[in-house]
Amino acid sequence: MKKRVSLKDIAQEAGVSTALVSYVLTNKEEKARVGREMANKIRKIARKLNYQPNYLARSLKSGRTDTIGLIVADISNPFFGQIARIVEDEAKRHNITVIFGSSDENAEKSADLINVLLNRQVDGLIVIPSEGSEQQILQLSERHFPFVLMDRPFPSIAASSISINNFGASYNAVEHLLRTGRKRIGMIAYQTSLHHIAERRRGFEVALANAGLKTEKRLKLARYSHLREDIRKAIDQLTGGKHPADALFFATNSLAIEGLRYISELGIRVPEQLAVVSFDESEAFDLFHAPVTFIRQPIREMGKAAVQLLLSQIADSERPPEDIRIDAELVVRRSSAAN
Amino acid sequence: MKKRVSLKDIAQEAGVSTALVSYVLTNKEEKARVGREMANKIRKIARKLNYQPNYLARSLKSGRTDTIGLIVADISNPFFGQIARIVEDEAKRHNITVIFGSSDENAEKSADLINVLLNRQVDGLIVIPSEGSEQQILQLSERHFPFVLMDRPFPSIAASSISINNFGASYNAVEHLLRTGRKRIGMIAYQTSLHHIAERRRGFEVALANAGLKTEKRLKLARYSHLREDIRKAIDQLTGGKHPADALFFATNSLAIEGLRYISELGIRVPEQLAVVSFDESEAFDLFHAPVTFIRQPIREMGKAAVQLLLSQIADSERPPEDIRIDAELVVRRSSAAN
Repeated sequence: MKKRVSLKDIAQEAGVSTALVSYVLTNKEEKARVGREMANKIRKIARKLNYQPNYLARSLKSGRTDTIGLIVADISNPFFGQIARIVEDEAKRHNITVIFGSSDENAEKSADLINVLLNRQVDGLIVIPSEGSEQQILQLSERHFPFVLMDRPFPSIAASSISINNFGASYNAVEHLLRTGRKRIGMIAYQTSLHHIAERRRGFEVALANAGLKTEKRLKLARYSHLREDIRKAIDQLTGGKHPADALFFATNSLAIEGLRYISELGIRVPEQLAVVSFDESEAFDLFHAPVTFIRQPIREMGKAAVQLLLSQIADSERPPEDIRIDAELVVRRSSAAN
Repeated sequence: MKKRVSLKDIAQEAGVSTALVSYVLTNKEEKARVGREMANKIRKIARKLNYQPNYLARSLKSGRTDTIGLIVADISNPFFGQIARIVEDEAKRHNITVIFGSSDENAEKSADLINVLLNRQVDGLIVIPSEGSEQQILQLSERHFPFVLMDRPFPSIAASSISINNFGASYNAVEHLLRTGRKRIGMIAYQTSLHHIAERRRGFEVALANAGLKTEKRLKLARYSHLREDIRKAIDQLTGGKHPADALFFATNSLAIEGLRYISELGIRVPEQLAVVSFDESEAFDLFHAPVTFIRQPIREMGKAAVQLLLSQIADSERPPEDIRIDAELVVRRSSAAN
């Protein structure tokens, strides 16, 4: 078998020290005092000899790669973009680099990404799981691979997770609408088996039931794959008929934004004709003619806690899972003002 | 030296085929018909023998990892989130997985990420570079590592890049404002050395000069690190005094959103008192009381082209760099309607 090309081989051919070669090949040449010409010569030799960096060996030495993986459910949703940024900022404080992927709400893509990131030897994973990815998460758990679920817990799996109290946040939002005098409150949620959305729906139903109001036909579900069309239909149904809704509660920011586009098109006045409340944050909520009342998820706190919990798990793989539930805050603005 | 533990060793101890072990350890156990109990047994043996997957060997065999890296400038900006999603969708069509990182407009973080992704043996990189990262990009180029710059070219570096015609888009936007009768047009841009922003500023200045108008004091710069404060100051200056601006042109979506927040607070009527045009897209632009006229970057086309260009480079590392410049479209809406 051909001997593996080492840094020493390159150093000998270039007539420099092994340390210098190492600096250049790990792109840290500013640390050594090496001119661009020499750096290029070293790289040229490395290419000629077909040098392959033995990253695996490097990481086996320390046992760590100081890299964690983050899998979000859909990177085109600014909510997850914000979370990614916060996780990165927090990881950076611990000198950890984050590489991430987006499952785009697709379980198959999620499996690919978990594989790719594990093969890349990340020390641990933070996952905002997509629907149908329970098996993948279960496998991580059975392998004792360090990971933390964020935003969306799987109650059937004993795993560390960080999420808000979705039931409570939803219940509070509906109570707020009731207090402002609304009686015909509709909700638009995703059609999904994911637990956090089920909890948001349950909060809506229990709050209405406790107020002696019926929920049938007031809860509409939209498919992720047919968002625009399903939301328009739901709003038509909820705001039409003899008893049109006087308030709409959106289970996520993406549902709300699509809904608000249609509400603007229809010329419905918010909050006079229709109060609006939504989960999550969005820049668009601030610029809507009636700034939108929203449930603020403490994403900074969640992101920090996720990184810290993951790092404790990486340090001690036998650590029992921890389930962190944080209360969310209702930020009341003009879209749900009393008439 | 201790012999490396192989899949065969694990298979023998478990009494199953090597193929089955391989399926389980690459998390593809659904492809083999293996029960959870057996899968767990196999994993337990692998752990006991301290099996380390030889990912490097696996990738050397094919010469490819079928993974590309994407480095965006700030993942919390929905514009880059959208690009990330499009790059992923396009890569997926070629059975390529994307892992990404965000430099958060920080050159040091960018260097870390390039290292981490190269060490993870991605086949190539798509980079939306941050200010001050020229040296890193130059190194990639000198190493003949396949990469494509997106959105922000470095004209001093011979590298493949995909971007819009920033000068032309900016020129057109200002001409549009002039045609609607505006004469005192202000621009707010980032204070940065990045070429694409310089081109946007130049388009503004040349368009005004060609119309015989002066630009001094009409162009204001905001620092990325002091966004809110600098934008408020700029808007106060531009809309105050004896000759208040009758139009504002924002060089990016993040500048526009912060600016529109302040314009709403001040109670300035758009477009009656002040026309508004911005680069980039945003959900918030749709929901503003006067939907905002914007320069639509063809990000779907750009994302597709970036992936295809990168794949051609990976296939042929001697391929000369290609510079793709795409025209952007001005989407005229109410925020810049003629009075």
